[in-house]
Amino acid sequence: MRDLPLAKVYQLLEPGPVVLLTTAHKGRANVMAMSWHMMVEFEPPLIACVVSNADYSYTTLRATKQCVIAIPALKLASKVVQIGNCSGQGVDKFQSIGLTAAPAKLVEAPLVAECFANLECKVVDTHLVNKYNLFVLEVLKAWTDPAQKHPKTIHHHGYGSFVVDGETIKLKSRMP
Amino acid sequence: MRDLPLAKVYQLLEPGPVVLLTTAHKGRANVMAMSWHMMVEFEPPLIACVVSNADYSYTTLRATKQCVIAIPALKLASKVVQIGNCSGQGVDKFQSIGLTAAPAKLVEAPLVAECFANLECKVVDTHLVNKYNLFVLEVLKAWTDPAQKHPKTIHHHGYGSFVVDGETIKLKSRMP
Repeated sequence: MRDLPLAKVYQLLEPGPVVLLTTAHKGRANVMAMSWHMMVEFEPPLIACVVSNADYSYTTLRATKQCVIAIPALKLASKVVQIGNCSGQGVDKFQSIGLTAAPAKLVEAPLVAECFANLECKVVDTHLVNKYNLFVLEVLKAWTDPAQKHPKTIHHHGYGSFVVDGETIKLKSRMP
Repeated sequence: MRDLPLAKVYQLLEPGPVVLLTTAHKGRANVMAMSWHMMVEFEPPLIACVVSNADYSYTTLRATKQCVIAIPALKLASKVVQIGNCSGQGVDKFQSIGLTAAPAKLVEAPLVAECFANLECKVVDTHLVNKYNLFVLEVLKAWTDPAQKHPKTIHHHGYGSFVVDGETIKLKSRMP
């Protein structure tokens, strides 16, 4: 895994890929799939996301105020669905699904070694958690896997239908 | 334009397409491009989005508490970039760029007739506006254009680089 400058993090999340969110508490790690996230600020990168209070990760995220957002490429699509199809209650999803929890540098939640990008995050705002399950995160450290070049991400359209990244077009935009 | 059930709105926004946001105040309409949005609730559909206080639309959105989120397909990509490249201050972007502002049913902000989906929204939460420019919207009414079948959306990776929807894969997910 190679360092990614924090100023480039938005380019990973702005396009709306399905991501994984890992948490850890008292030595026990969990991972969930998530599509409800968005950028809030470029640098330091702030991310908003919705983690339902019906999700097993919710309690850990509230308690530890830490997580990792890991971005899977197409080759992990079937594992992403397996992650979404089961709860972490009483199950070690990393082991049962076959993913590698790698140590992060600044948070207890693990990186997902198979993902092409991993973002170590802390919760910085909980004002909208009770009403909407909406957390605001700050990215503390970002990693990319230099071995995964031009990864194609997947975008959920509901009920297991995913659109895969197609061609890239380049237009003369003044927008960052 | 055909009615879309509100329960299906999340399937449009969850995949992270670039969208247009229209506002109107005192008979004057504007449109901006936006990638920082996410779903917050299925039904009634709630959407969070970031509209910078440097954007001309910000003041109107705060004042009127209404907007339309319109979703453009690939064919509108160059117009989306033109929208992002200029401010609405002193310019009628609909006219200068060549887009059709069509009347909405429940809000003053216009639909964008060329877009394959249009969502009429009201602002329902402004707690995080001062701190993060983060608005929470409720979708009041949703429209789709039945003439645009299987539209491909675009996803911004920064500086005018857009990934276009590619193939669709179907996996056995229990997630809505």
